[in-house]
Amino acid sequence: MTTITIAKGDGIGPEIMDATLTILKAAGASLQYDEITIGEKVYLAGNKAGIADDAWQTIIKNKVFLKAPITTPQGGGYKSLNVSTRKFLGLYANIRPCKSLHPFVFTKHPTMDVVIIRENEEDLYAGIEHQQTDEVVQCLKLISRPGCEKIIRYAFEYAQQQGRKKVSCFTKDNIMKQTDGLFHQVFNEVAVEYPHIIKEHLIVDIGAAKLAATPEEFDVVVMPNLYGDILSDVAAQISGSVGMAGSANIGNTCAMFEAIHGSAPDIAMQNKANPSGLLQAAVMMLHHVGQYEVATTIQHAWLTTIEKGIHTVDIYKEGVSKQCVTTAAFAEAVIAHL
Amino acid sequence: MTTITIAKGDGIGPEIMDATLTILKAAGASLQYDEITIGEKVYLAGNKAGIADDAWQTIIKNKVFLKAPITTPQGGGYKSLNVSTRKFLGLYANIRPCKSLHPFVFTKHPTMDVVIIRENEEDLYAGIEHQQTDEVVQCLKLISRPGCEKIIRYAFEYAQQQGRKKVSCFTKDNIMKQTDGLFHQVFNEVAVEYPHIIKEHLIVDIGAAKLAATPEEFDVVVMPNLYGDILSDVAAQISGSVGMAGSANIGNTCAMFEAIHGSAPDIAMQNKANPSGLLQAAVMMLHHVGQYEVATTIQHAWLTTIEKGIHTVDIYKEGVSKQCVTTAAFAEAVIAHL
Ligand SMILES: CC(C)[C@H](C(=O)O)[C@@H](O)C(=O)O
Ligand SMILES: CC(C)[C@H](C(=O)O)[C@@H](O)C(=O)O
Repeated sequence: MTTITIAKGDGIGPEIMDATLTILKAAGASLQYDEITIGEKVYLAGNKAGIADDAWQTIIKNKVFLKAPITTPQGGGYKSLNVSTRKFLGLYANIRPCKSLHPFVFTKHPTMDVVIIRENEEDLYAGIEHQQTDEVVQCLKLISRPGCEKIIRYAFEYAQQQGRKKVSCFTKDNIMKQTDGLFHQVFNEVAVEYPHIIKEHLIVDIGAAKLAATPEEFDVVVMPNLYGDILSDVAAQISGSVGMAGSANIGNTCAMFEAIHGSAPDIAMQNKANPSGLLQAAVMMLHHVGQYEVATTIQHAWLTTIEKGIHTVDIYKEGVSKQCVTTAAFAEAVIAHL
Repeated sequence: MTTITIAKGDGIGPEIMDATLTILKAAGASLQYDEITIGEKVYLAGNKAGIADDAWQTIIKNKVFLKAPITTPQGGGYKSLNVSTRKFLGLYANIRPCKSLHPFVFTKHPTMDVVIIRENEEDLYAGIEHQQTDEVVQCLKLISRPGCEKIIRYAFEYAQQQGRKKVSCFTKDNIMKQTDGLFHQVFNEVAVEYPHIIKEHLIVDIGAAKLAATPEEFDVVVMPNLYGDILSDVAAQISGSVGMAGSANIGNTCAMFEAIHGSAPDIAMQNKANPSGLLQAAVMMLHHVGQYEVATTIQHAWLTTIEKGIHTVDIYKEGVSKQCVTTAAFAEAVIAHL
């Protein structure tokens, strides 16, 4: 029995977490849950971090954390807990697989199968901003050699273990010669140790353009934090929907698993959100804790459900989908196919 | 007769500039050229700026500049002349129309017609980088209120003049609350003055995802420099090819027109590059100097050429294209259709 921390989050968080937990239970995952409350409720109770100290302790103790999307209130000096969790726990690698489910989910890119590996602690996400004058504000982009080494090595190790053939790297080092230049240089240095894996570097503008137009030409793509944020949403959306993608945030001791989409307050509590992103995150989590069989069982049942055209409204498409179902009904359908 | 400055640039620059000038001449554009040499040759002769002082004088005197792509050598402290030209001349607005030519050029987005309006002087492009420690480097992202005001007002004025219905704004202000927050805030302030134009703001990750998946839902999109760099390449490529898009860089006194693609040294001097990007830039330039009729004549001839399936290799596609032609032959075909 593995104990993991869970947080149901805000907006559509509770619905998709409940759906996910129901499936995990029905599939026989050997899990116990420590539930913590984080996000909006905590912020609005006056805690600017959105999380209490004992919740941090729980996360650290259990090492594995399944997190639903949370909302950070606008203004007022609130910090993004998504970002502080990654930083505080040292979750340096953010892995975001984006694979087409053609012909079962509509996509213009039927054969794409891309994994974005995003640096997860540095870059403009360091959150160092200040007002220089009345009319001028600044934000610091920070890149370190150890930071580059960790994520780039992770990308090559991942490619090797998963039998993938190519690792692409995107930077804007024709402009940011020192910061993005360092990322590119470390990429070249680490790539030498993996002679069987094809490596390529693209300037992020044309890289993004090619990824959006011909994603089937990419395999594993590693990049600094902000490019990875933007381009993983692009890759997920053109593969089907951002609502379908899960992610793993990996560090040396802890790991956090989450959907790549947000808390979508506009559709909260309507029982119509797609739980697939969080469920995919849960499947990655099961692999992480070594429960491979349950992971595979759930993945098959989920695929079968999707293949049968049982779709939530976000991916419902005339001619492709058969049935438009609620969040809860989708979870039941997955369970029926276990 | 208007005198403009031209630079033939590096890589494929001279070929596509020659093709463009031949068409301008045949169409009867009332232009005279002051040619300057900038870029690689100048860099390699020891001038780290890539441009001599008298070339700057020529550009400033003529106020209008048609520029082919140039190459900045790697390393050695060279500065990007693309960026310094924009900054030195105060070219704060970069306008990049990305329109599908379906069914004449292959695209998965047949009805897209997006104009990216990119802030052109600030953001990480300020080029302020330094080494903090042995292993840590930094780059400064700089956003100013006047900078935001100029570009956002430009976007709304542009939309109004062109009869466009919506202006979208992309920022990452959930993370960069001060810098991107300022851009978003000024967007809201300026939008109020244009009540007939629909305005929307999207976080850049989901904005980029939607732009890449469903570009037909966008009209005018305004954003900070780096997002605009990346997403204009995305929009151009999915509309057909980055090789087809021209851009206008507009300031209070000067203006520069250029293709949005680079100098592509790998295919230089092979007479196969697509001159369309630079030609589209030239058409924007003709509008800028008030030669509307010639602009329209060239635009029609160019469209007819494309519609007849006379394509350079970059956009050649079985079943869509009829003839694969060289750079020079493409120019001749455009001239034949004037
Ligand atoms: C919510 C936000 C802070 C977060 C990010 O920017 O990383 C999200 O967009 C993501 O990609 O996980
Ligand atoms: C060549 C490069 C400096 C330039 C930029 O980043 O602006 C180019 O990509 C562009 O978009 O015009």
